[in-house]
Amino acid sequence: MSSDEELLEALLAGEHRALARVISKIENRSPGYRDLVSEIYAHTGGADVIGITGSPGAGKSTLVDKLAETYRDRGETVGVIAIDPSSPFTGGAVLGDRIRMASTVGDMDVFVRSMSARGTLGGLSTATADAVKAMDAFGKDKIIIETVGAGQNEIDIVRTADTVAVLVPPGSGDDIQTLKAGILEIADVFVVNKADRPGSDRTVQELRDMIQLGDGGGGMSGGDGHHSQEVIDAHDDWDGEVADVEETAGWTTPIVETVATKGEGVDDLISEFANHRTYLVDSGEHAEQVRGRYAEEIRTLLREDVHALLEDRLAERGGIDDLAESVRQGETDPYSIAGELLDPVEDCLDELETEDA
Amino acid sequence: MSSDEELLEALLAGEHRALARVISKIENRSPGYRDLVSEIYAHTGGADVIGITGSPGAGKSTLVDKLAETYRDRGETVGVIAIDPSSPFTGGAVLGDRIRMASTVGDMDVFVRSMSARGTLGGLSTATADAVKAMDAFGKDKIIIETVGAGQNEIDIVRTADTVAVLVPPGSGDDIQTLKAGILEIADVFVVNKADRPGSDRTVQELRDMIQLGDGGGGMSGGDGHHSQEVIDAHDDWDGEVADVEETAGWTTPIVETVATKGEGVDDLISEFANHRTYLVDSGEHAEQVRGRYAEEIRTLLREDVHALLEDRLAERGGIDDLAESVRQGETDPYSIAGELLDPVEDCLDELETEDA
Repeated sequence: MSSDEELLEALLAGEHRALARVISKIENRSPGYRDLVSEIYAHTGGADVIGITGSPGAGKSTLVDKLAETYRDRGETVGVIAIDPSSPFTGGAVLGDRIRMASTVGDMDVFVRSMSARGTLGGLSTATADAVKAMDAFGKDKIIIETVGAGQNEIDIVRTADTVAVLVPPGSGDDIQTLKAGILEIADVFVVNKADRPGSDRTVQELRDMIQLGDGGGGMSGGDGHHSQEVIDAHDDWDGEVADVEETAGWTTPIVETVATKGEGVDDLISEFANHRTYLVDSGEHAEQVRGRYAEEIRTLLREDVHALLEDRLAERGGIDDLAESVRQGETDPYSIAGELLDPVEDCLDELETEDA
Repeated sequence: MSSDEELLEALLAGEHRALARVISKIENRSPGYRDLVSEIYAHTGGADVIGITGSPGAGKSTLVDKLAETYRDRGETVGVIAIDPSSPFTGGAVLGDRIRMASTVGDMDVFVRSMSARGTLGGLSTATADAVKAMDAFGKDKIIIETVGAGQNEIDIVRTADTVAVLVPPGSGDDIQTLKAGILEIADVFVVNKADRPGSDRTVQELRDMIQLGDGGGGMSGGDGHHSQEVIDAHDDWDGEVADVEETAGWTTPIVETVATKGEGVDDLISEFANHRTYLVDSGEHAEQVRGRYAEEIRTLLREDVHALLEDRLAERGGIDDLAESVRQGETDPYSIAGELLDPVEDCLDELETEDA
């Protein structure tokens, strides 16, 4: 049995050290990692994948810790992938948090891994998707992907989750306008965290107005552009507002108020995650989502592989700089170069097809 | 002689109708356009390519018209490519402007063509680069690319110019902050247009401060992060400020004040374009710039071609949706699919290399 086969067996047997090693192999694109991930796929499909995003300071880490703790209290196992933005300084902070959490939790049922573009060869989005698969095959019930949600890259990553929660800090009227640019559209659940702070009611109202204008929410799950919403009371000085639920086709993007530091609202949030999961499965949207995600993964892999292939071809031809210089010298042109590089490939493929036929 | 050969001959003979037809072929990717552009390359290299960008309302069209008119008065021929943002409504406006200009100029030595993502198959950036080549081979002395400079796409386009002028409207302190995000870094020349308006001096000062902080300017030509600047007096109520030129290695990003509607400052701007051209050539930066641009064109073409090739392969295999569904059913996985699609291609290439060796 090869060492990768042993590693896979150990992963499937629930050894956390094997899980850690598999994710490292994914990050480093170690020899054999592709076959390993390829094998892992057959053992996946059991986990709920939840994405948590929002601007820095919204309280994501604390909320994720509380969610993990609550799931664990309910007897479910949890994996957390904390997407670490590129700054070399945040790594330590994230790790610090996690060490604190590990000691609170006191066991390995919450497995935390931080990943960053810096520490990952190739695309972070592909590596994250593969790490989720590894955790899924391992047998984690809930996998939480936590990102800062700043750029398109992080949005792409969090969209690989089944359910996406967007955290909005209270009193952030301006922030809502800013967030609109991309994060709000991917929300399946809005979370107004730090709901004991002033301005929280106004933020809930602004989110509600925005949703009613069809201006956000729904994301992957929506599509009819007409979303209703309900507000879940989680905060103890709740002012008695009643959820105004409007029946529409599709998912109702809820707004949940939480105070993560005190654990308030976490149960409600977990209920909404479960509701969304049920909605996804019952509506058939989950199958569609998963199909779309796999299509994207196939395309991404093909792009990466072909890119490597082309770089090899370019290197054989003397490297891109020499080719560009010969264009500058008037000896050739980009179209001729592309043709010379790719025509043989096309010919090969045509031959293959003839053989197949 | 094929019709494309005739077309090429007519283009090289200076027939504007042929130039227009070649650019249409480029936009539509008509059959044979690649061979045509490939042939055209051998006849290029004579033109100066100038990019003009800036926010809407900065007065780009008027300035471009005046620049074209001035070049023409000096006996130089001009081609203008107006990059039309995606809005379906601006097309008419641009065309309207251009008809007015054509009637002012009264001849075809200024050839204007507007291009848009909407009207162009494939990448607008590739199409623009090819249209520049067509105008260059035709024999235009100066080619001006005019873009709104709103998104990354337009920035990529304007960077295909040798010299980039960024227009900044006066009294736009806030705008300078906004512009910083991407446009200012690509400026080889700053133009404060509408310099007869209040706030113009302040805008010049802000640009100067920014440049001195090493916060912008330089773009493709800079690199030492330390730019000096000079202010060219073009505006008639000029207050006598003296250019403070600091000698540094590299290009000194100048600030030129213009009132395009009255033609003020246009001669100074043209001088700065000429200075920058001289700088580029003397420093060897031009060769480097051109090489970099060709490398990028080769890569873009390869990407596009390979993309098409992969789509064909995917279609042969039943289409991406069916493949994604079979992953969902647990029958296969993205890595296996990528391998099955690309391994034959790699084998073909290996065989080719063996034959070559």
